[in-house]
Amino acid sequence: MDRIERLLPEEIERRSFEIISAELEERGIVLAPDQERITKRVIHTSADFDYARTLTYSAHAVETAERLLLEGACIVTDTNMALAGINKGALAKLQVEARCFMADQTVARLARERGTTRAAVSMELASRLDKPVICAIGNAPTALLALYEMIREGRWRPAFVIGVPVGFVHVEEAKRRMMETDVPYIINRGRKGGSTIAAAICNALLYGLLQKREG
Amino acid sequence: MDRIERLLPEEIERRSFEIISAELEERGIVLAPDQERITKRVIHTSADFDYARTLTYSAHAVETAERLLLEGACIVTDTNMALAGINKGALAKLQVEARCFMADQTVARLARERGTTRAAVSMELASRLDKPVICAIGNAPTALLALYEMIREGRWRPAFVIGVPVGFVHVEEAKRRMMETDVPYIINRGRKGGSTIAAAICNALLYGLLQKREG
Repeated sequence: MDRIERLLPEEIERRSFEIISAELEERGIVLAPDQERITKRVIHTSADFDYARTLTYSAHAVETAERLLLEGACIVTDTNMALAGINKGALAKLQVEARCFMADQTVARLARERGTTRAAVSMELASRLDKPVICAIGNAPTALLALYEMIREGRWRPAFVIGVPVGFVHVEEAKRRMMETDVPYIINRGRKGGSTIAAAICNALLYGLLQKREG
Repeated sequence: MDRIERLLPEEIERRSFEIISAELEERGIVLAPDQERITKRVIHTSADFDYARTLTYSAHAVETAERLLLEGACIVTDTNMALAGINKGALAKLQVEARCFMADQTVARLARERGTTRAAVSMELASRLDKPVICAIGNAPTALLALYEMIREGRWRPAFVIGVPVGFVHVEEAKRRMMETDVPYIINRGRKGGSTIAAAICNALLYGLLQKREG
């Protein structure tokens, strides 16, 4: 059998984005210039072109998220998996902090005491940080609902929400509610999403900033 | 606005699987009894019913993987993200070890020297473990191709392959080749997959064993 040509990761990535661009064009999909880089990276991560139609951005969302990252906002994820997927080199170069409170002992205890999820409680810990927070939710609709209630009750307001939890129960409703707030967002309508998607959006934002700085 | 009823994670999961079962039935899809639990968990993780048609099992794959896990096989993932997604409580209860070599300094150095990917080199480190290895590949087709070459050249044979890399370049080809070997597998045909899918398959296997043991 023929040997498959050896490609370096950068080459694989370049060709992948060429294929994605070509197939978006075949489908007659034109992405907004500021959103294109992010939506394409999500498709690259999922091989799922549905995201081209469901990934939804509030007005000037990308510009807002980039400014927040440059001004020292912290990314807080709802899973250690999403945190593991964010490029540590890019974070370091941009001096951006990324955290996840899911493994925190306090979170487990409070969740048990209150009969709620650890993800919901972890958003409360995010609210106590003394800097603007970009909440990146790739798994738990309960985290998104906890944020929604904090915003509605005036207890806290995250600076930005990446809302891409995945699933069948409360997921679509949680996303719809978050889109009714005045918090800027990137949200995937519908059931789909995931920790890899949350991480891909964070990485696309970070890579965009690095590209601007280096290019 | 109405308050969304508060649900505990177990309740959300139970309802999610009910919805998945109902929608599979609507689609006229009947899963093999031994594969059902695993395919449903992958759909639960992705909200993507495509997996019901593309997730492919070698003969007696689930039985084989379960036996390997009980007999002390080690799971090796191709990303720290997949490793982060495997349930640590379930691993501990079953005394199963899970590892990832991607952050290993040797891996980075060898990949640079040889002009290949870290994922490919990390499979070589897996081959040096002194126990049977279940390779769980959720990201890098190059890891799957590295395994294929080791098998073909008789250098090493993983005990089992979970082959669900995602992407546009070499991914489908790498999966097809792996399915031609005699190594037992769970592979997702086509472009789709990901670290969350690799972790979901590992977790489904672990949960199945725990369920059998506990009752």
